[in-house]
Amino acid sequence: MNLKRKLRMGMIGGGRGAFIGTVHRMAAALDGQIELVAGCFSANPEKSKASGADLFINPARVYSTYQEMAAKEAALPADQRVDFVSIVTRNNTHYAIAKCFIEAGFNVICDKPLAFTLDEAKKLRTIVKKSGKVFALTHNYTGYPMVKEAREMVRSGKIGKIMKVVVEYPQGYAITALEGKGGGKISNWRMDPNVAGISNCMADIGTHAENLARYITGLEIDSLVAELSTFIPGRPLDDDGNCLIRYKGGAKGILYASQVSNGDENNLNIRVYGTKSSLEWHQEDPNELIVKEVNKPQSIYRRGNSYLSPAAQAFSRTPFGHPEAFIEAFANVYKAAATASADEVSGRKLKKDYDFPTIDDGVEGMAFIETVVKSANSSSKWTKFAKI
Amino acid sequence: MNLKRKLRMGMIGGGRGAFIGTVHRMAAALDGQIELVAGCFSANPEKSKASGADLFINPARVYSTYQEMAAKEAALPADQRVDFVSIVTRNNTHYAIAKCFIEAGFNVICDKPLAFTLDEAKKLRTIVKKSGKVFALTHNYTGYPMVKEAREMVRSGKIGKIMKVVVEYPQGYAITALEGKGGGKISNWRMDPNVAGISNCMADIGTHAENLARYITGLEIDSLVAELSTFIPGRPLDDDGNCLIRYKGGAKGILYASQVSNGDENNLNIRVYGTKSSLEWHQEDPNELIVKEVNKPQSIYRRGNSYLSPAAQAFSRTPFGHPEAFIEAFANVYKAAATASADEVSGRKLKKDYDFPTIDDGVEGMAFIETVVKSANSSSKWTKFAKI
Amino acid sequence: MNLKRKLRMGMIGGGRGAFIGTVHRMAAALDGQIELVAGCFSANPEKSKASGADLFINPARVYSTYQEMAAKEAALPADQRVDFVSIVTRNNTHYAIAKCFIEAGFNVICDKPLAFTLDEAKKLRTIVKKSGKVFALTHNYTGYPMVKEAREMVRSGKIGKIMKVVVEYPQGYAITALEGKGGGKISNWRMDPNVAGISNCMADIGTHAENLARYITGLEIDSLVAELSTFIPGRPLDDDGNCLIRYKGGAKGILYASQVSNGDENNLNIRVYGTKSSLEWHQEDPNELIVKEVNKPQSIYRRGNSYLSPAAQAFSRTPFGHPEAFIEAFANVYKAAATASADEVSGRKLKKDYDFPTIDDGVEGMAFIETVVKSANSSSKWTKFAKI
Amino acid sequence: MNLKRKLRMGMIGGGRGAFIGTVHRMAAALDGQIELVAGCFSANPEKSKASGADLFINPARVYSTYQEMAAKEAALPADQRVDFVSIVTRNNTHYAIAKCFIEAGFNVICDKPLAFTLDEAKKLRTIVKKSGKVFALTHNYTGYPMVKEAREMVRSGKIGKIMKVVVEYPQGYAITALEGKGGGKISNWRMDPNVAGISNCMADIGTHAENLARYITGLEIDSLVAELSTFIPGRPLDDDGNCLIRYKGGAKGILYASQVSNGDENNLNIRVYGTKSSLEWHQEDPNELIVKEVNKPQSIYRRGNSYLSPAAQAFSRTPFGHPEAFIEAFANVYKAAATASADEVSGRKLKKDYDFPTIDDGVEGMAFIETVVKSANSSSKWTKFAKI
Repeated sequence: MNLKRKLRMGMIGGGRGAFIGTVHRMAAALDGQIELVAGCFSANPEKSKASGADLFINPARVYSTYQEMAAKEAALPADQRVDFVSIVTRNNTHYAIAKCFIEAGFNVICDKPLAFTLDEAKKLRTIVKKSGKVFALTHNYTGYPMVKEAREMVRSGKIGKIMKVVVEYPQGYAITALEGKGGGKISNWRMDPNVAGISNCMADIGTHAENLARYITGLEIDSLVAELSTFIPGRPLDDDGNCLIRYKGGAKGILYASQVSNGDENNLNIRVYGTKSSLEWHQEDPNELIVKEVNKPQSIYRRGNSYLSPAAQAFSRTPFGHPEAFIEAFANVYKAAATASADEVSGRKLKKDYDFPTIDDGVEGMAFIETVVKSANSSSKWTKFAKI
Repeated sequence: MNLKRKLRMGMIGGGRGAFIGTVHRMAAALDGQIELVAGCFSANPEKSKASGADLFINPARVYSTYQEMAAKEAALPADQRVDFVSIVTRNNTHYAIAKCFIEAGFNVICDKPLAFTLDEAKKLRTIVKKSGKVFALTHNYTGYPMVKEAREMVRSGKIGKIMKVVVEYPQGYAITALEGKGGGKISNWRMDPNVAGISNCMADIGTHAENLARYITGLEIDSLVAELSTFIPGRPLDDDGNCLIRYKGGAKGILYASQVSNGDENNLNIRVYGTKSSLEWHQEDPNELIVKEVNKPQSIYRRGNSYLSPAAQAFSRTPFGHPEAFIEAFANVYKAAATASADEVSGRKLKKDYDFPTIDDGVEGMAFIETVVKSANSSSKWTKFAKI
Repeated sequence: MNLKRKLRMGMIGGGRGAFIGTVHRMAAALDGQIELVAGCFSANPEKSKASGADLFINPARVYSTYQEMAAKEAALPADQRVDFVSIVTRNNTHYAIAKCFIEAGFNVICDKPLAFTLDEAKKLRTIVKKSGKVFALTHNYTGYPMVKEAREMVRSGKIGKIMKVVVEYPQGYAITALEGKGGGKISNWRMDPNVAGISNCMADIGTHAENLARYITGLEIDSLVAELSTFIPGRPLDDDGNCLIRYKGGAKGILYASQVSNGDENNLNIRVYGTKSSLEWHQEDPNELIVKEVNKPQSIYRRGNSYLSPAAQAFSRTPFGHPEAFIEAFANVYKAAATASADEVSGRKLKKDYDFPTIDDGVEGMAFIETVVKSANSSSKWTKFAKI
Repeated sequence: MNLKRKLRMGMIGGGRGAFIGTVHRMAAALDGQIELVAGCFSANPEKSKASGADLFINPARVYSTYQEMAAKEAALPADQRVDFVSIVTRNNTHYAIAKCFIEAGFNVICDKPLAFTLDEAKKLRTIVKKSGKVFALTHNYTGYPMVKEAREMVRSGKIGKIMKVVVEYPQGYAITALEGKGGGKISNWRMDPNVAGISNCMADIGTHAENLARYITGLEIDSLVAELSTFIPGRPLDDDGNCLIRYKGGAKGILYASQVSNGDENNLNIRVYGTKSSLEWHQEDPNELIVKEVNKPQSIYRRGNSYLSPAAQAFSRTPFGHPEAFIEAFANVYKAAATASADEVSGRKLKKDYDFPTIDDGVEGMAFIETVVKSANSSSKWTKFAKI
């Protein structure tokens, strides 16, 4: 990370009971390079305070509002104030919070999707680019070493020209909202159009699928045809969506996401078919990358081996056979963004190749959501990908 | 089979070097209930004769044309002539040959797709229904015991209301036609519109996927949106196709088939998601059926066990752990069709539940091909399923 | 097979309700090269007759005793009498029946284990070798194409020097004999020392494991240490056994077999570790052979591909991705033995390399049983492999 | 953890380039409950200092010897000194270091195996028990949630009476020491009898296998027969070992470990067969636990689900489908030991059920090593388990 001290982190959101905030903190803590020193953990000041105490944060640096936090942290001496903040709040607040901290001079790591609307996303992009600050978006699945290996295989020409991409992301947890499934309450702000935006399922996980496919293949969507469905009665947004895709350059794609795929857990999978060979990766079995080619034995590439690309090796922590998983991949986004942030706070010129998802990925994701919803409401077959 | 003798079979097509003819013969032979006694194995009389000799057929019953075969066999005494014929020729000949044998009074097993056009298929249906003869179509994948178990799970209500169906059939063999893949000649009559019809890939294997989904779920397609592609340069027909499907009753589907999915072999898979539970089956691992439900351990149902439905048990030959595979599943189509044929030649009333694919499946398959091609050429989003 | 007619087969044993007799018949029928024309299907003449009728055998050739069958078949003209017989009776009868038919001039296929005792096995070996007849033993698991591929890999040097062999054969079906497991009657002649011999589990399936390991590796056992257990109360013979093995040349082995491994079906697996690479094969997933080597991606070799050895390709029937399984492997023993028998009845000199298990495999198997039982009763650590 | 501050940790060993020290630090850091504040990272004072700087440790608390560290830390005020130390040095130093810190009043987490000899282990046990301090041994594989679930299944009676245990731990990394495998240097202090003790492979990983089996089953070894081998020429200790085991109460076992299983990575697997059901767990696929029972579908239990036992749920961090792996399991040892240490430093009475491996596990492991080596050198079949 090239800094003589730990990087100082602040957090917005992630109070008691929050799932993704805890994941961000574990990801940040894993490598012993980052310390959490400040936060505004909840819009409720009491909850923020209690959460800060849980995390052993100095109470003076547990804030009641993010605006207060940005102002007071900015006012601290350079050897005390946070180097970056992590934003782990709901979709409709990302823009304002990120804008506030960027403009106050902080680097930012933000949960996905980037914003409430594509328009917000584009405005934020302008702000970020002008600022020269680091902005990372936690499309965490691209943090897996074998996903990085997959990208390297595409880049190196091993796959040849890509003909077809199949990416799928079925989850089934929402089925518990059906009568008799006994799943208890599901946090459903994601189903609230005023908080989540114009899509639930496609925004929450469809964007992960889209980002993963683009990260590995480098392909850009030309146009798509989408259908969105709502299977759980009474919900205002989609809980399932299917797309056919035309990529620029002629490749074809299938992308789908679902929260009602009963019994599936977090079953993100991708297959990329090329003229030279094909590859296949499964998030629930993340240490393997399958490479296939007609008239050859299948090859199983496994994390931690010396035959892997530098990109895959640089983001591994344990030897082969000692599996890594979700938190380590998430931590790889933090690792790369922390390296960039350390460069930024040290006044070094930022590089091109830290390998974390950026504001551009976030704009793409919002454009994907808008395009999908537009197509779902259209009677024409192909809808052009939104202008970004 | 309820006959005091072996059932007598004739074959049209399947001469030296033919893949599918050999499969049909192994499937017919497996249970020791059927004997091959006559055939017209090739449009080339010399090749037909040589093939008949390979198969130890009485030369007097090896014919030069199928018309000759139908006429001469029909003229034989009842205790000698064939009880049924298997048609394993190219798509564009199925109609005429099947018509000829049905009208000559024989039961028929025919390879898929049923015919050259939907129109032919409907005409053949009229002929078959009027004849009272047995007509079976070798959509062999529904012969697998665990596919039958899957259907029973849907029928029994175990799956609940079906919300989503994902069926995929990627093969990669055609990639060898690309320069430098060294795959040698690929029999490419399937790429010839004058022999195969209006589709190659969707007709050859897309119809299997469609049939499998319908067999298990019982769902009928309301409308679909399809894209067909040709990735191998110079080919006149599709080698890859993707569809989104709307089923009657509200379920959604994804169906795709491909011959250019580099390194995939015969990777037919289906997932059916219901409100109560979901199921998943993989043709290349056919002895297992995976059942999933939120908040429950996954269940792996395995062929040959006493906990399976009678439908699955009746079509198994070996105990659990002694795997069965492609030929046994194919033989199950023969087993069911032979039972029906034995009833027919014995003058018994035909039953409803032999459990083999029928002329109706064939018409559905041809309608599927026509709908897919129509959609692929349309700029509208949804194309209604062809009238059958 | 190089014969201008089907090979004629007789069967001893395998009457109504017999599992293994049915498997032998399916294996014989599959390729359309063999016809079953005679038999003595049961020691009970009525049952033999009824079974023959089920199988559409000419009643004149359904016999009441095997002695009668041998005599009468031998008296038939050469163009009518059986070319070989299949013996699918209980262990304690194999010797006498095989001796009778060999001495009457017939080729023989016999189920395993070869005999009731090692002594019988050696005597039968003398008879067979003197006769010049074909004698095949149905250690069917070596009929799998990917097992043949494994052997070729060892022979070609790809594996290097073998250091370790782990072969395991857990079944769990016998657990149903425990109270409350509701498994109904288990045919338990295998537990009767007067019928099965000195071992149940090791004789029935341990010999398969031993044969599989020797087939693939070519290694000979120098000495072993074994423990036999009987977990199902009241049984006189072993239902579970574990061995450590020292092979000649320095390799080490672990072999175990069990009938009380609750929930395992027919879970025969082998791993062979060499200095250059290692291989792994699973009977319940028989179309794959896994090849592993430090610092290299794992390779999955799959049946039906052109990159496989001629040995594996010669015993495949369907293209890649169209799985073959238990019956096809069993049929490969028949295919090879039938080729040899066709040569024998045609007066051609027998070859060395038909690739089916022979009388020598049978003697080895009986020696293995004797050595294991001797070790189990010994307080010394290592017991030398019995003299054969 | 029930402490109003982070727990303070010191480390002995784990300097630059050390694999296991890094793992311990990640495990300690993951949950944000522990801070590393002191250490003696190497026997080389310069390296210790540099390593401390890498880790952002206050240089005043980076020590040159562990004795200095114990003395100076003990002299610090209670609100500054470390609460526990982690010992991640070589086997032959564990005893002296642990003794030193325990006697200086610190809680201890120690890498395995516990000591250089069984005798040392027993002496350390006396010291620990007398001290009242927390002593945890990082048999990390028992930290996996699904291993805890397995133990709960045994304890709850779901498995019934255990009949058989098969535990295997093949690695292949040592094969790179063979000529031409190009694996570079392998740290081989484990092959040095003066550092590692009387065994290499069995001490390093065989003890993990033994511990895992005992943790899940609760079974105690009555006697065993072992063979140790050295396949890599020139090595003084075992690189491969196989055992048959008799457990008290009648169950039988197979245990093996290897470092020359070419191409295996860290392939620790266990199968436990009981009268009611059986279970199977694979370290390289750690989020699943397979439960099998005759006449029932197989069940796959998956981490993170609400149907799991409290024991499994308490040690999970992410929802189902978001896989956890090696580091999280390792962190679970730290989590449990930290909870105990927090109780100890807070003056609360220690509980029985924190669920981490203890000094007793360490003594058992050393007894296992001694018994295995004794058996390997014996010509008698069964060697009684060493007195502990």
